[in-house]
Amino acid sequence: MNPVFSFQLLRSDGMARRGQIVTPHGRVQTPAFMPVGTAGTVKGLTPEVVKATGAEIVLGNTYHLMLRPSAERVADLGGLHSFMNWPGPILTDSGGFQVMSLSSLRKLTEEHVVFRSHLDGAMHELSPERSIEIQALLGADVSMQLDECLRLPASAEEIVRAMELSLRWGERSKRAFEGRAREGYALFGIVQGGDDIGIRQQSARALTGIGFDGYAIGGLAVGEPQAVMLKVVEETTPVLPADHPRYLMGVGTPHDLIEAVDRGVDMFDCVMPTRNGRHGMAFTRFGTINLANARHAHDPRPLDEISPHPTARDYSRAYLHHLIKANEMLGAVLLSTINLAYYQTLMAGMRAAIEAGRFAEFKAETIAGWERGDLPPL
Amino acid sequence: MNPVFSFQLLRSDGMARRGQIVTPHGRVQTPAFMPVGTAGTVKGLTPEVVKATGAEIVLGNTYHLMLRPSAERVADLGGLHSFMNWPGPILTDSGGFQVMSLSSLRKLTEEHVVFRSHLDGAMHELSPERSIEIQALLGADVSMQLDECLRLPASAEEIVRAMELSLRWGERSKRAFEGRAREGYALFGIVQGGDDIGIRQQSARALTGIGFDGYAIGGLAVGEPQAVMLKVVEETTPVLPADHPRYLMGVGTPHDLIEAVDRGVDMFDCVMPTRNGRHGMAFTRFGTINLANARHAHDPRPLDEISPHPTARDYSRAYLHHLIKANEMLGAVLLSTINLAYYQTLMAGMRAAIEAGRFAEFKAETIAGWERGDLPPL
Repeated sequence: MNPVFSFQLLRSDGMARRGQIVTPHGRVQTPAFMPVGTAGTVKGLTPEVVKATGAEIVLGNTYHLMLRPSAERVADLGGLHSFMNWPGPILTDSGGFQVMSLSSLRKLTEEHVVFRSHLDGAMHELSPERSIEIQALLGADVSMQLDECLRLPASAEEIVRAMELSLRWGERSKRAFEGRAREGYALFGIVQGGDDIGIRQQSARALTGIGFDGYAIGGLAVGEPQAVMLKVVEETTPVLPADHPRYLMGVGTPHDLIEAVDRGVDMFDCVMPTRNGRHGMAFTRFGTINLANARHAHDPRPLDEISPHPTARDYSRAYLHHLIKANEMLGAVLLSTINLAYYQTLMAGMRAAIEAGRFAEFKAETIAGWERGDLPPL
Repeated sequence: MNPVFSFQLLRSDGMARRGQIVTPHGRVQTPAFMPVGTAGTVKGLTPEVVKATGAEIVLGNTYHLMLRPSAERVADLGGLHSFMNWPGPILTDSGGFQVMSLSSLRKLTEEHVVFRSHLDGAMHELSPERSIEIQALLGADVSMQLDECLRLPASAEEIVRAMELSLRWGERSKRAFEGRAREGYALFGIVQGGDDIGIRQQSARALTGIGFDGYAIGGLAVGEPQAVMLKVVEETTPVLPADHPRYLMGVGTPHDLIEAVDRGVDMFDCVMPTRNGRHGMAFTRFGTINLANARHAHDPRPLDEISPHPTARDYSRAYLHHLIKANEMLGAVLLSTINLAYYQTLMAGMRAAIEAGRFAEFKAETIAGWERGDLPPL
């Protein structure tokens, strides 16, 4: 008998929360960062490497997997955990965000969204019910409701319309989820409302009324300034129930993460550590470092000699620079690993600080480290 | 004090030899396969993964490293072992083969070869002395003499001219190597002579007269039929001294390897397991398997459920197919790992068979496995 989904709030420090999520495939300590395993793989990394960075849960993309190899194929093969050889917890998104950002020829109605695959041009349909069905076929520990995610800025009228549609889709998602009788598994609702605080709070209250296992804040990190995003977060989390996890979708930089935890967020996902890593950018306690820069070409020092993760200690900046300049696959692999490990180190630091009641100090020290910047040249 | 290079012949079984090479950076059991770490990296794989496949020595390419980041840069950074974080033995080639195959505007004289970099068009010069200097800067445990490698077929006149030039370059390489006083490190000579047995044997005898720490057979696997290659090998090894290792350069398929060991070869290198892996081809005890083929799309079985290496057991054929079709980096990583592990499993099998005096049976069983082919469809 697998464990049943639950969330336990262990400690608070200001708005920052230290918690534990239990899922059918294992526990997740929060605040938690989820590496993105888009098409059934965290790009370039084996599950062993992902786990060694400290990750306890990964995210899978419904949009990518429904197009290739298809949810039915993954289900036939035993589900996403087995397919990608990741035995731990998996959260899947609903597919809505990628339909908006990647596909063409979208037609959105009350019933569903119809879109053309970016892979082969085939037409597909995604409704709240189909999204929940796909996520069940994948075997996600945590499913997300289908929502409509706008780009910002958007008109007040558009923001209200999309939020209300997302609420109705939330209700349909919940009915569909319950109809599948996946006891012990979780469904999260998604707060929408653009950058309008009143509409965001209205969305949060209505979702709480419907009742979900957790609550996400969606539709942010879509081009708005960081201050706008943080304002929305800090005005939304107090409206959400304290005894459920809160997930800020698609966010973000290390600075975004620490500010959002300070505003009561428990979970995050973002492609930034892996995508930027593939392009030569490292996230470190010294801030971001562009390894493609020529100043690293003869620097024998590792990125961070006191990192708890060996990959950040065992390779010189000069070697990483060489791999990036030579477009070597290992450069992408090592920097993705180093970045995910830094994100996990940051989350672990936040968790320890909350436990110790010194989150504010930890935040100030961490930001000061980023602001001091990289090591001086040799 | 590092150990000094040596070769010990432990056991023979027919022409097949079981031996041990000692180098300043560790021991190598022979017959041995060396993964190719072209530009300071076995493409996509960390040194830990390479080691876990069973590899004890890797090859570095002088041509690639001299162009980027340059031998002087690698030396400043502590040498190639430190640069690529591979503490074990390294053999470097002389650069001659890639000058012929990758660069343009070559001008070959008695003195040296002048060529244009395929990276930035800059002109470079490679002489026997400069090649030895570069390999010393890299810190190679085993250096190779500079030689001229022809494409086959070639005229008898050309074959003789190139073999004789290679001999003179072998003498200059040896003088240059001795002048650098790298005690305990090794220099190998290279037999040339195209597909002409008489010229090959003349080359082998002359090289033995000069005296090297090991003897390579070069200029094969350049387009000639396998039977021609094996004929050259079997007529060349008896002319080489039994108390030194023999290295067949740039070879080959698993079948090439088992046939060459049967003809007295001790060492191999080839890009095939990694390059073909990146393109979806797996080497297994069932022969080669093309994972891009649609018949694997819904096959939950691993490539080889009794492989001693977990990567060949832990991922389904369907998942590998998915990764290759989706052009996911992890597909290249996993298949490169699986292929290198298969090559090392094959070498370990050959070593055990020679020790047990049953190489002929092992060879027959192994080839029969390849000929039976892949598992039947489910």
